[in-house]
Amino acid sequence: MDKNAAIGVFDSGFGGLTAVRELIRLLPGEDIIYFGDTGRVPYGSKSRETIKKYALQDSRFLLSMGVKYIIVACGTASAVAADTKEKLTVPMTGVVNPTAAAAVKATKNGKIGVIATAATVASHAYLRSIKALSPSCEVAEQACPLFVPMVEEGCVDRDDIVVRTMVERYLGGLKGMGADTLILGCTHYPLLTDAIRDYMGGGVALINSGEQAALFAKSELERLGLLSGRASGGSTDFYLSDDTEKFGALAEYYIGRHLDGRVERIDIEKY
Amino acid sequence: MDKNAAIGVFDSGFGGLTAVRELIRLLPGEDIIYFGDTGRVPYGSKSRETIKKYALQDSRFLLSMGVKYIIVACGTASAVAADTKEKLTVPMTGVVNPTAAAAVKATKNGKIGVIATAATVASHAYLRSIKALSPSCEVAEQACPLFVPMVEEGCVDRDDIVVRTMVERYLGGLKGMGADTLILGCTHYPLLTDAIRDYMGGGVALINSGEQAALFAKSELERLGLLSGRASGGSTDFYLSDDTEKFGALAEYYIGRHLDGRVERIDIEKY
Repeated sequence: MDKNAAIGVFDSGFGGLTAVRELIRLLPGEDIIYFGDTGRVPYGSKSRETIKKYALQDSRFLLSMGVKYIIVACGTASAVAADTKEKLTVPMTGVVNPTAAAAVKATKNGKIGVIATAATVASHAYLRSIKALSPSCEVAEQACPLFVPMVEEGCVDRDDIVVRTMVERYLGGLKGMGADTLILGCTHYPLLTDAIRDYMGGGVALINSGEQAALFAKSELERLGLLSGRASGGSTDFYLSDDTEKFGALAEYYIGRHLDGRVERIDIEKY
Repeated sequence: MDKNAAIGVFDSGFGGLTAVRELIRLLPGEDIIYFGDTGRVPYGSKSRETIKKYALQDSRFLLSMGVKYIIVACGTASAVAADTKEKLTVPMTGVVNPTAAAAVKATKNGKIGVIATAATVASHAYLRSIKALSPSCEVAEQACPLFVPMVEEGCVDRDDIVVRTMVERYLGGLKGMGADTLILGCTHYPLLTDAIRDYMGGGVALINSGEQAALFAKSELERLGLLSGRASGGSTDFYLSDDTEKFGALAEYYIGRHLDGRVERIDIEKY
């Protein structure tokens, strides 16, 4: 494996950019290649079989770019397509296991809430991962299907009645059970952090799945001797399966700052 | 052309079933073949080029099934991929022109509002179609990106604060301009009719694009001598690009009643 190769990251669309943000913060010298499947977004409402097929195509594209590691920065693809791993030639990580481990570490009362897409919740991937680490934990999962389109429309303000109502509607049960730890199981959700914190209260630990995946990838790359050794100057290139026209502004919205780098459209159905 | 062949209908997902409902009501003896691109839904937030490619694949699939006519029951595909027509061997209609004609006929004060997906509004297809028929009409278009996911999540109740707030937010400008006619330019939107009527008031004519496309198709099939002559007993078969598991319940939600008929998954990327 080439230590100087890039780290590959893919997501169904833009949400995974919240993981890229953390990766750049943690490993500013590494090159990153991001693929966003914007031509087929979202994954969270689709079936297990379709998501697996898409995740495999996404991975194949990144492999064709010569990456040394793959981060599945999409909660849905991580939860549903975990066995894609067996078909790949580079190490990879999804968001589920690192995030579950962080939640188990964070909880004091053993009650963990999980919010995610419909497909992720139906897979019970977070539940299984948490129970494997700590069988006594109480876990409640809640699908939040409107959160992704809300985030994509910029409907994220903590004072917006629609945001507040949907947060209350989706999170009411998890608050009621007394969860002291909440997994944001979709990489879009960090943009709703303010509204979620307002409703759940400051005492509840919010676990950001993109951040946990980036932290885990860093430790794995260290362990495997795959870090480039560069401390700064990493490039970030972006590939999308739909139009790239509005990418700049959207990337800034998710990453929090402007990024240079190649932005190119590819035909993912060929992979 | 075989008069006994089926009428083909396609949509990005389930919204087009509101057109199928009207088609069954108008032509109960005709066979219908429906394709819903549920593996790549939605179209409305995607780029012109991607939508054109998808619409062409959808049409090719229906042609492979031997249909005699194609209805593009997707506002976005109708608005963006109008020139797909040239590549087809059967007559076809989208929702835009029939709906624009009905709106021009309905308006008394010449002020027409259009609500649709982001891609449809960006295409200005409704504006152009209305202006071609009646240059003096005043037309205002409004994209409503959250309406499709809301409808898909069953978030349609007229008393729901989220529904009422989003309707008010999206339709405020059109109400302000004094439109007496409102085009529901996406086949998902008829499920929000109650909430839209509550906000706009009973004096505003709501034009249902799926219904208008079905009415137009009926008159075209008559004109071309392509009706089967059967008055009842038409079959309705459904093909989807994602899982068919939950199709029954969803079809009932959009069509308003249970339908028998084949429900099958196909790989649309092969067409």
